[in-house]
Amino acid sequence: MVKDNGKIIGVADTMFARINMGEIAVETLGDKAKKEKIKIERYTVPGFKDLPVACKILIEKYNCDIVLACGWVGKEDIDEVCAHEANIGLIQAELMTNTHILKVFFHEKEAVENAQKQKEICIDRVHKHTLNALEMLDGKEALRKNAGKGKRQGYTDAGEIE
Amino acid sequence: MVKDNGKIIGVADTMFARINMGEIAVETLGDKAKKEKIKIERYTVPGFKDLPVACKILIEKYNCDIVLACGWVGKEDIDEVCAHEANIGLIQAELMTNTHILKVFFHEKEAVENAQKQKEICIDRVHKHTLNALEMLDGKEALRKNAGKGKRQGYTDAGEIE
Amino acid sequence: MVKDNGKIIGVADTMFARINMGEIAVETLGDKAKKEKIKIERYTVPGFKDLPVACKILIEKYNCDIVLACGWVGKEDIDEVCAHEANIGLIQAELMTNTHILKVFFHEKEAVENAQKQKEICIDRVHKHTLNALEMLDGKEALRKNAGKGKRQGYTDAGEIE
Amino acid sequence: MVKDNGKIIGVADTMFARINMGEIAVETLGDKAKKEKIKIERYTVPGFKDLPVACKILIEKYNCDIVLACGWVGKEDIDEVCAHEANIGLIQAELMTNTHILKVFFHEKEAVENAQKQKEICIDRVHKHTLNALEMLDGKEALRKNAGKGKRQGYTDAGEIE
Amino acid sequence: MVKDNGKIIGVADTMFARINMGEIAVETLGDKAKKEKIKIERYTVPGFKDLPVACKILIEKYNCDIVLACGWVGKEDIDEVCAHEANIGLIQAELMTNTHILKVFFHEKEAVENAQKQKEICIDRVHKHTLNALEMLDGKEALRKNAGKGKRQGYTDAGEIE
Repeated sequence: MVKDNGKIIGVADTMFARINMGEIAVETLGDKAKKEKIKIERYTVPGFKDLPVACKILIEKYNCDIVLACGWVGKEDIDEVCAHEANIGLIQAELMTNTHILKVFFHEKEAVENAQKQKEICIDRVHKHTLNALEMLDGKEALRKNAGKGKRQGYTDAGEIE
Repeated sequence: MVKDNGKIIGVADTMFARINMGEIAVETLGDKAKKEKIKIERYTVPGFKDLPVACKILIEKYNCDIVLACGWVGKEDIDEVCAHEANIGLIQAELMTNTHILKVFFHEKEAVENAQKQKEICIDRVHKHTLNALEMLDGKEALRKNAGKGKRQGYTDAGEIE
Repeated sequence: MVKDNGKIIGVADTMFARINMGEIAVETLGDKAKKEKIKIERYTVPGFKDLPVACKILIEKYNCDIVLACGWVGKEDIDEVCAHEANIGLIQAELMTNTHILKVFFHEKEAVENAQKQKEICIDRVHKHTLNALEMLDGKEALRKNAGKGKRQGYTDAGEIE
Repeated sequence: MVKDNGKIIGVADTMFARINMGEIAVETLGDKAKKEKIKIERYTVPGFKDLPVACKILIEKYNCDIVLACGWVGKEDIDEVCAHEANIGLIQAELMTNTHILKVFFHEKEAVENAQKQKEICIDRVHKHTLNALEMLDGKEALRKNAGKGKRQGYTDAGEIE
Repeated sequence: MVKDNGKIIGVADTMFARINMGEIAVETLGDKAKKEKIKIERYTVPGFKDLPVACKILIEKYNCDIVLACGWVGKEDIDEVCAHEANIGLIQAELMTNTHILKVFFHEKEAVENAQKQKEICIDRVHKHTLNALEMLDGKEALRKNAGKGKRQGYTDAGEIE
């Protein structure tokens, strides 16, 4: 089933990240994006605090319908503060554009000093959020089937409480 | 007494939640919404940080008169930081639209490791806030009768200090 | 001396509060408001995080010249975080409207587990801030006489350092 | 050398402060303001959280070219949170008006329980920032001579690292 | 290869800094800026909390295509809070202008009481971020080659996780 919905997905990522998160997103989009003629726009910035304006530019200048903001947060407290600032900015960018920006952030604190585990969590998170973005192109009810299901990106799902 | 006030209530919820908070809101709206021909618009997003823009879209694109933003906050510190970001964004969305968004957030920290208690608090909170939303459709003085009464959602009321 | 200055004061309060703060404000406005034909507009919301948009509506829809935002903050840490969010929103609402919103917040932490003391501080604070609001209707220099005087609402004044 | 540059400096201060910070600013402006026909507009508000909108009004309604926002922060943790909110608001007001608002805040924590020391730091800070404001009226390069010089207001300069 | 791209880079710095960060940025821009006829606009302010509006003015009044915001953060907790406020403001300024402002902040906490180490980290950071700014003038894909490479400013790179 081929449809050309003319949609554009933005992928913003950073030089700071220790994994090519943007590339993982693009690969995940791969087949489906090709089949449905979804266009991809990438934007690489130095660090995650540069993501909010990059995402806004992707939306307003490159006409993206949804954006994946891929950030890698260092293990220091100051990094967490920066992540907080970036997230406030990303939400603000969403409100200024009425467009979703999925905040795909990996925090080194999730697996301190264990690079392989970090990589694993990060890849899973980028992968799942990319699929979320694809579904969200279909409108506000596309994810309803998963409402309240305790879905997690980066980990196994927590599940619904019976 | 049937009135068709043409009002629309938005219900935004998440896949992250471990209870179908959106469904509880819709069920609570049930009879009254039907009798008064109040329309309901739902919007499901991945996590609660995606709620601000979803609520703003419900208001600006789907013409909602009031919105319930249903979020479930994990037990980690980082989850609390995210909830803080989401709430700042929700208040900002309210200011940009001059429309109320009731912030219906359950925090796992309220009942750590006790899933049944979590469910109980969460259901009570969604239920009561949904009733608040319905009353608020009647204007700025609809809740005055309860001013200073120590009302609580999720718990028994604290009551007025004599 | 009767003057009809056509001014409107907004009073926003909550169901969450354990004292009817809005009523105290209205009573304090009482005689003076009557003499000077100052109109009062009230708005009651569920909790203090709903105050920012309520105040903005009081200003933009009900033409208030100044607003009293009356909030009661619970004793838990999460309540303090919420108060922080509400205050950021209130300041933002002021900036969007070029209108003062006096932030009349009582925090249970000021007198933990002592309801009578809480009531006493809260009443004093609402009372004094209501009088501030009345004076501020007379313009930016009305309070200059008290500049640097260490004025406190809810407590006795700290006074000026000699 | 007399020049009439038609500039206006705003001075906003509070009743909460324990020193008449606004008066110190006005006195510091004194001779120079007189010589250069710089006009001064004052605005006194209850507390420092009321400063952001006061400064914005000074800029937009009273046409100030730069504003000194003079705040005195109490010694409690809640006071520091309030100062944080005020500063976020002041920066926001600057961004909305493209006009500098110098944030002249004294924190009691800088010299707990030592009123004379508090007064001394506060006066020095107001004084130096007032001189900064005067220089900044001459444009974006007026302070370049001091770039990287480790200048401090309220204390002796830290100086440049050799 | 000479090109006159008509680009303008803004450099904002402070009197508070203990190193002339703005000068280092200008020197780094040096040859390349000259060759490519890139114009430089400098703006010096008292402290880093004055940077957001300075950067916005550089963008809107001086037509800068990108700005380096150079801040030096003291070692006290209050300094870190101020840095947080400044960063929120800088991101907001970016969103209001759709223009990148690179946040080149050095924190004394990175090397407490070691002035030479502070200087070293700070110089490296300014230098690398200035080069980033130059590359970013070439558009959103100029930095893609470094995506996920664990790039660090002020330190050696963390590198990509294999």
